[in-house]
Amino acid sequence: MSDKASIGVTGLAVMGRNLARNLARHGHTVAVHNRSEQRTRDLVEQFGAEGEFRPTYSAREFVDALERPRQVVIMVQAGAPTDAVIEEFAPLLETGDVIVDAGNAHFADTRRREAALRERGLHFVGTGVSGGEEGALHGPSIMPGGSVASYESLGPLLEDISAKVEGAPCCTHVGPDGAGHFVKMVHNGIEYADMQLIAESFDLLRGALGYEPAQIAEVFRTWNTGRLDSYLIEITEQVLAHTDAATGKPFVDVVADQAEQKGTGRWTVQIGLDLGIPISGIAEATFARSLSGHADLRAAARGLAGPARTRLSGAEAERFARDVEQALYASKVVAYAQGFNQIQAGSAEYGWNVDLGAVASIWRGGCIIRAKFLDDIRAAYAAEPNLPTLLTSGEFRKAVEHGQDAWRSVVSTATRLGIPTPGFSTALAYYDALRAERLPAALVQGQRDYFGAHTYRRVDREGTFHTEWATEERRERET
Amino acid sequence: MSDKASIGVTGLAVMGRNLARNLARHGHTVAVHNRSEQRTRDLVEQFGAEGEFRPTYSAREFVDALERPRQVVIMVQAGAPTDAVIEEFAPLLETGDVIVDAGNAHFADTRRREAALRERGLHFVGTGVSGGEEGALHGPSIMPGGSVASYESLGPLLEDISAKVEGAPCCTHVGPDGAGHFVKMVHNGIEYADMQLIAESFDLLRGALGYEPAQIAEVFRTWNTGRLDSYLIEITEQVLAHTDAATGKPFVDVVADQAEQKGTGRWTVQIGLDLGIPISGIAEATFARSLSGHADLRAAARGLAGPARTRLSGAEAERFARDVEQALYASKVVAYAQGFNQIQAGSAEYGWNVDLGAVASIWRGGCIIRAKFLDDIRAAYAAEPNLPTLLTSGEFRKAVEHGQDAWRSVVSTATRLGIPTPGFSTALAYYDALRAERLPAALVQGQRDYFGAHTYRRVDREGTFHTEWATEERRERET
Repeated sequence: MSDKASIGVTGLAVMGRNLARNLARHGHTVAVHNRSEQRTRDLVEQFGAEGEFRPTYSAREFVDALERPRQVVIMVQAGAPTDAVIEEFAPLLETGDVIVDAGNAHFADTRRREAALRERGLHFVGTGVSGGEEGALHGPSIMPGGSVASYESLGPLLEDISAKVEGAPCCTHVGPDGAGHFVKMVHNGIEYADMQLIAESFDLLRGALGYEPAQIAEVFRTWNTGRLDSYLIEITEQVLAHTDAATGKPFVDVVADQAEQKGTGRWTVQIGLDLGIPISGIAEATFARSLSGHADLRAAARGLAGPARTRLSGAEAERFARDVEQALYASKVVAYAQGFNQIQAGSAEYGWNVDLGAVASIWRGGCIIRAKFLDDIRAAYAAEPNLPTLLTSGEFRKAVEHGQDAWRSVVSTATRLGIPTPGFSTALAYYDALRAERLPAALVQGQRDYFGAHTYRRVDREGTFHTEWATEERRERET
Repeated sequence: MSDKASIGVTGLAVMGRNLARNLARHGHTVAVHNRSEQRTRDLVEQFGAEGEFRPTYSAREFVDALERPRQVVIMVQAGAPTDAVIEEFAPLLETGDVIVDAGNAHFADTRRREAALRERGLHFVGTGVSGGEEGALHGPSIMPGGSVASYESLGPLLEDISAKVEGAPCCTHVGPDGAGHFVKMVHNGIEYADMQLIAESFDLLRGALGYEPAQIAEVFRTWNTGRLDSYLIEITEQVLAHTDAATGKPFVDVVADQAEQKGTGRWTVQIGLDLGIPISGIAEATFARSLSGHADLRAAARGLAGPARTRLSGAEAERFARDVEQALYASKVVAYAQGFNQIQAGSAEYGWNVDLGAVASIWRGGCIIRAKFLDDIRAAYAAEPNLPTLLTSGEFRKAVEHGQDAWRSVVSTATRLGIPTPGFSTALAYYDALRAERLPAALVQGQRDYFGAHTYRRVDREGTFHTEWATEERRERET
């Protein structure tokens, strides 16, 4: 039996191929399969020396090559292609076998598939995998959902190939059914928010100070030695420092300023709305990308008047650059606080019992948002598992409270200079709204009661009330 | 045949009852029906003298009481109850008859129902009705979708009972299938945004100037005589001027500051995301409501430090109040511009060919957002039907450009004082982003290319490019 493979990967485009290679490099025998045979042959030909591959050329052969319980990793396009591949393999599997969807499925699809396959005696694991092509090969962050039982056989393999931080694998059993894909979705949403905040920081340093991209790269390099130390800051420095070979201009100046998206940011916001969680940082980042892509609209609006564009200089400029670091950090805390609250809400809604500290822990390495910062979040939830928001946790609270003057100053300056900072602004508005003694939501409820008889509650007694607005002598009454 | 009813209403809760009364008051014979008979009896007993009602007590009797083509208005809860009532009546109807859903259905459900009933030879009209209970009785704004043929028989009746502005009915055939409910959805989304902006204005006048609600009511009364003249400003004045009888305190101070929602704002944002339209004003308003409702989270965050809360006074205070009016107006233009762009995008996506000027026209009266302002929007689209955004239209452009200093000053002051203005801030950020020569989206694309090989486009030539970031000598190549 020892010539059977301990796991199989079907779908050998770059992500699937790299996961298979990663597994083989870790000493696991990997059955590989692809709809078109050439990819299978190419993999074995090019990378066969890296470990034990079992190339197979039919679904039957693939399934027969696997040890029981079989573990079949599917790495194909989300949506209908995933369903098609599941339907191809499920009939060939036996009770207790495990199908792993390592693609970017919507968690609701994962819940549906898991329930359907459970009925047929199969385990279905939807897992998030973050880190791109390089991560898949060298160690991604892995977020598997599905049953506890499936993790018994699958977990050790995934932990083996995941990134490691201080010896700990960046992989944990996130929770039942769709929990893994849900958490991956929020990861991507947070990634959108974080990238938007970095982009605004760049735009501010350029617009307010007139710095060149290479100078700003230097600023990011410095920031990367402190509390902002992260993969995204590191690659920002790289991108900004890069000179386009063809023109000799800064690379960032020759790139079209239209950011694209593949949909996970949008999903995060849509699900956040369903759960009633204000995730304005992710929303503004998503809107900023779609706005950037509306070329016609932007062309039409380009002539709209702005303020006189002045620049800061001297000591004021130096102080501003430091303030931007504070604003970026504070806004980042808000964006992550919102994202973790969304995971908390999803976990409560679907009964997943997700360990937020464990999520922060497996995001410390391998994934796009990997950062020192995530270890601080891990520690915050370790100290207080039911933390209502990261903003009230010791170190974050201190940092944000300490940085708020700088944060306000940056937003204020951006507003005055006409540099758009939707990410910074919404983060600060969230902070101020969350801590507010009273919100004008009371007026909104009053309006709703006026035009729609939607009723209201009172601050001084229990119950639901309605005011008879149309009568001569207005009267409040309990409803 | 003349004793047959020209239209029927089933579902006689307050909205259905008031629509039926409105029809009867306009001289139409109305068949009425309700699942529980008592409501039908009550209607005839209490309001029978207002016109010609035909009370009916079974589906068969109801259908038989109607002239052909029969026009059956359903006014029940959205979702499954609507489907149930459709399934009750559809089998009793004949080719060419019309079912009208006047509830708050999701436009996707309306599209599904319209297609299914069309197959069965029936017309299905999903129609938005705005104006609350009072509007339904005295003249709502009506937004019917469905076939052109259905509007031939139904339109005159709906126009008859709709609000009138300068003699023009606030009812038009919006477009095929789900167009009516889509437009009603965006109406409600805009309503959220408008209410949030008003609430922020109130909060600013109170927080920055220390005005009492009665004083602020006076400010709104003045505003209501100018370009902000609207139903929402009018009722804001009423709500703020109202004193709670039980406590003698300002009404707005005894209302719990947790705004509720029924879901159309959320839908608008979710669909806006699907369509790729940045509708940040509606999103921030929706988030502000959900944030206000998170009592536990707010209690935990209440101690977070803010800035020293100072107040403006004297000439500075007077100027600030005027500036808030400018900021409110400019932010309102942005919110409506975003909403109309969403309708434009929905129309293009579903082939509805919606006339944006006609939509503005029927929102001038009857509905919650009715305002002088809507006539300006009507005029803007009349002058330029393919206007890319309201922001570039003559008068709006002038007003926003003229008001931008005040707008910036208000956002800046709010930021400094720690008063949350997510609506004002996002509107200004949208304005500044839309008119920006370059956006930092170029950096975001660079990051995406770095970590995910997502490629980018260039400003200086056509094509899709990728940089080999990991290589020693970085190279750009066309993909």
